[in-house]
Amino acid sequence: MTPELQDPVAQATAERVRDAMFAKDAAARALGMEIVDVGPGRASVSMTVRTDMVNGFGICQGGLVTALADTAFAYACNSWNEQTVASGFDVQLLAAGHIGDTLLAQANVLMQGRRTGIYDVNVRNQDDVLIAVFRGRSHRLKGRVTDV
Amino acid sequence: MTPELQDPVAQATAERVRDAMFAKDAAARALGMEIVDVGPGRASVSMTVRTDMVNGFGICQGGLVTALADTAFAYACNSWNEQTVASGFDVQLLAAGHIGDTLLAQANVLMQGRRTGIYDVNVRNQDDVLIAVFRGRSHRLKGRVTDV
Amino acid sequence: MTPELQDPVAQATAERVRDAMFAKDAAARALGMEIVDVGPGRASVSMTVRTDMVNGFGICQGGLVTALADTAFAYACNSWNEQTVASGFDVQLLAAGHIGDTLLAQANVLMQGRRTGIYDVNVRNQDDVLIAVFRGRSHRLKGRVTDV
Amino acid sequence: MTPELQDPVAQATAERVRDAMFAKDAAARALGMEIVDVGPGRASVSMTVRTDMVNGFGICQGGLVTALADTAFAYACNSWNEQTVASGFDVQLLAAGHIGDTLLAQANVLMQGRRTGIYDVNVRNQDDVLIAVFRGRSHRLKGRVTDV
Repeated sequence: MTPELQDPVAQATAERVRDAMFAKDAAARALGMEIVDVGPGRASVSMTVRTDMVNGFGICQGGLVTALADTAFAYACNSWNEQTVASGFDVQLLAAGHIGDTLLAQANVLMQGRRTGIYDVNVRNQDDVLIAVFRGRSHRLKGRVTDV
Repeated sequence: MTPELQDPVAQATAERVRDAMFAKDAAARALGMEIVDVGPGRASVSMTVRTDMVNGFGICQGGLVTALADTAFAYACNSWNEQTVASGFDVQLLAAGHIGDTLLAQANVLMQGRRTGIYDVNVRNQDDVLIAVFRGRSHRLKGRVTDV
Repeated sequence: MTPELQDPVAQATAERVRDAMFAKDAAARALGMEIVDVGPGRASVSMTVRTDMVNGFGICQGGLVTALADTAFAYACNSWNEQTVASGFDVQLLAAGHIGDTLLAQANVLMQGRRTGIYDVNVRNQDDVLIAVFRGRSHRLKGRVTDV
Repeated sequence: MTPELQDPVAQATAERVRDAMFAKDAAARALGMEIVDVGPGRASVSMTVRTDMVNGFGICQGGLVTALADTAFAYACNSWNEQTVASGFDVQLLAAGHIGDTLLAQANVLMQGRRTGIYDVNVRNQDDVLIAVFRGRSHRLKGRVTDV
């Protein structure tokens, strides 16, 4: 989406939500994630695979790839400042993440209804190889993320 | 399954695989996981939710619940000492994990063919509340996990 | 579950719901399905693969195997006479259904909350070969299936 | 994709595969499906909801919506003339299909590796309402669809 087509109010809301969420997001910080971009219905989050993130086969644990995708999903589905949680997701692991790889998860809304939504997240490495695809199912609660 | 009905050779194999995998499983150790039980086609893994595992809403990050389930899945699907990787999984998050909760993921084989398999993992907390259900899809490679 | 352990009122409710649903279930009848068994949280439905159910490779169309599983799911999740619809499902196709095969889908509740539920359906052929596994996600509306 | 950017050889292959598959696709014909468009990695298939396609709640049976999506998936993943079968799929049902509605399933490749692939299918009605989203997992066998 080109900047010209963006709604500046919606963009500012997404950024305020990001700030409010990230300030409390201990898991994202412990895993070294960075929120690279947010906007209405979208978010990009990066994570570098550390030595403490690999499993018994020496590759990034699939659940940690999922944690990255789930984080991008969370910032995308909350971007309208309506508090939203994940109800579930389907993940396909397509290629291995290795120590030192920088993974980028890009989340985009596919459908957002009044209460439920569907978001697609693609995870790629620094060579643009598709590592995983994630399709998340979200559910809106009845509050706001931030009142600021 | 009662101990009497177990195949002692298969049980010993599952335990050797567990030892070989856990020795290298940096992710499981970094997340404080403990392999509570293994056997042919099954594994139970526990994890206590730490302050660095919660997301911006103060509940255990769904990807970390998935990392726990995925670890139980990995030990179950490798229990016959044929090297096996996850190709994907479907997860439903049913209740929140809170700081201090001890989560137990129990994985059981539903179907194991020559190459592909399906494993179900249920994650419960210390009060036996079902936190998440995970259905994993596995794919066998052509090696062994351990030659010991 | 042995008959002795069943709640006879819940069983009678499941049977009344089955009768009310099946009377209007044009799709199930057009596909030759038979509701073999129902009870609280469970249902079994059979279908014989006809010549008009195979795809371009001569095997039962995966969507029609899914229609069978989805029907068992519907009777199971409505068995308490609270109107419930499918919000989605994950399916794994494990073996082919051939013309003349009789497929049996057995649905059982895994979790039923106040609004949402998870149901597992296994589809087997007449030789007890597992053809497909289906995990359904349900959502309760606010009415009853039948007032009878 | 604009016609100018298409590879005419790949396009012709996809059309030959469509013809060979549809000639034997009894299920698609019995359900009144029409293959509206094919190309490399994509296919669009339409189906009108008939009175014999509705369930006990008077809406198009979810499995039949899935059969439509699965058919679009099949023509898309076989479009390179390498015989490919569905190994599974995840479906989210978003809105009801009613008698007389014309549903259009549009399938596009998300990822095609040497053996496995991921395809997304969106199903919309005549008013462009999103009825269902389907993500299919495919597996290539070792033959061709057609030698013509």
